[in-house]
Amino acid sequence: MVEADPQVRVRLDLSYDGTDFSGWAAQPGRRTVQAVVEDALATVLRVPTIGLTVAGRTDAGVHAIGQVAHADLAEPPGPSLLTRLSGVLPPDVRITGLRSVPTEFDARFAALWRRYDYRISDKPTGTAPLHRRFVLDHRRQLDEHKMDATAHELLGLHDFAAFCKRRDTGTTVRTVQTFQVERDATGEIVVHVQADAFCHSMVRSLVGALIAVGEGRRPVAWATQLLGSTSRSNEVTVVAPHGLTLVEVGYPPDDQLAARSAVTRARRRDRM
Amino acid sequence: MVEADPQVRVRLDLSYDGTDFSGWAAQPGRRTVQAVVEDALATVLRVPTIGLTVAGRTDAGVHAIGQVAHADLAEPPGPSLLTRLSGVLPPDVRITGLRSVPTEFDARFAALWRRYDYRISDKPTGTAPLHRRFVLDHRRQLDEHKMDATAHELLGLHDFAAFCKRRDTGTTVRTVQTFQVERDATGEIVVHVQADAFCHSMVRSLVGALIAVGEGRRPVAWATQLLGSTSRSNEVTVVAPHGLTLVEVGYPPDDQLAARSAVTRARRRDRM
Repeated sequence: MVEADPQVRVRLDLSYDGTDFSGWAAQPGRRTVQAVVEDALATVLRVPTIGLTVAGRTDAGVHAIGQVAHADLAEPPGPSLLTRLSGVLPPDVRITGLRSVPTEFDARFAALWRRYDYRISDKPTGTAPLHRRFVLDHRRQLDEHKMDATAHELLGLHDFAAFCKRRDTGTTVRTVQTFQVERDATGEIVVHVQADAFCHSMVRSLVGALIAVGEGRRPVAWATQLLGSTSRSNEVTVVAPHGLTLVEVGYPPDDQLAARSAVTRARRRDRM
Repeated sequence: MVEADPQVRVRLDLSYDGTDFSGWAAQPGRRTVQAVVEDALATVLRVPTIGLTVAGRTDAGVHAIGQVAHADLAEPPGPSLLTRLSGVLPPDVRITGLRSVPTEFDARFAALWRRYDYRISDKPTGTAPLHRRFVLDHRRQLDEHKMDATAHELLGLHDFAAFCKRRDTGTTVRTVQTFQVERDATGEIVVHVQADAFCHSMVRSLVGALIAVGEGRRPVAWATQLLGSTSRSNEVTVVAPHGLTLVEVGYPPDDQLAARSAVTRARRRDRM
């Protein structure tokens, strides 16, 4: 086995339909996004293995249109690499961008924020068939204004332990930077949420809480009271993964990448 | 078998993902939209059979968000019928509306126009994974302005024989009322086309012609010269069905339904 020392860091922008994947992270015997993309890279670059580091380790069934990962290559990527990868990858995952970045670029630790959308249909006749792979089918009417008011109350720096599926080794304190609910032109409800990072199942738990309020089962104040909890709340439902899409990941300018990574590593060791 | 005389005509508005259907029209041994919806109606209404008449007999793989059909029932539909149907139907077909209409309402013959969208991705890295079931994956760059200019030239009353897959018994003269091409916010190209009616494979042939121009393989004038043909042109490619969606069907006011049906029946006996 001959492999040159890694010399060039590349950023990959990725889009995938999570339906037929067991999530991002490689697991033996499972079809995962990480394994499929790493295999495609190894095939096209003719190397034994390529390791990817990702911004958001999405769960099984969760989609992405703006996932970001990095890898270290022995040589700078040629102009045809992206096209060749597109020919090798299956249609449910696409690399939409590939470019050299400074070695300080770390897809996971240099990220400033992650942004997700969660889509819900509350039509009594069911989700539009062409949207059913990425929109939750919820046939009870929701009040999107109450949901938006609740989202607004949850903005900011809080301990989101009540919304974290399992307590990892690190903190459950997160900063929710934007959190909005709207009904779009198709009549579907879209929840937009952006935070520095999310603990496990946090978005799907937050959406579960918003739905309880939107249905009128819980008042707005109930959701904010959950912020006082220091452990997972069994009052919060984790909604299905297929409504969730990782939309975008934000990074600082190149000259601040190293500083950002250092801050993130110091602040937490738990999953993103 | 006890069945009352049909007394009430109902209009059904339908939405479906055509991927797993062999088109609209019932065929023995095939999963078709017509058969699935007729079976659901018969089950819920507890009658042996219900026959549907449809506005647009979509081909295998073609989708709909605004398909219209009618059926004759023995009794007026109850308020829970739509909900009960939603529970029985599979998730890839939805009845989005169901209401009593005058007996002069004929989903096929009273229609004034049909409107279709055809979606194309020309990204070199491939179609967005979550859109790949309803967007053509065309990895060569297209000039949407040239395509739009071509569409504009094809507007109006013409013999579209060059774009009709097989000559049926009736005329191939149609009136194309709107025909526009735009690139939407996602970067995909959307072809909007509306006509009084379409002959078999007409939309997919028109889009095939637009793509030839959009790629630069043919000039705009080539497409308009095809209008002079009195038979199917072998220069025109029929594009794949999965990019095509029936978006809306237009009808006249109730007091003009009977007159419209009479005109349509007289004008043509071929498929819509």
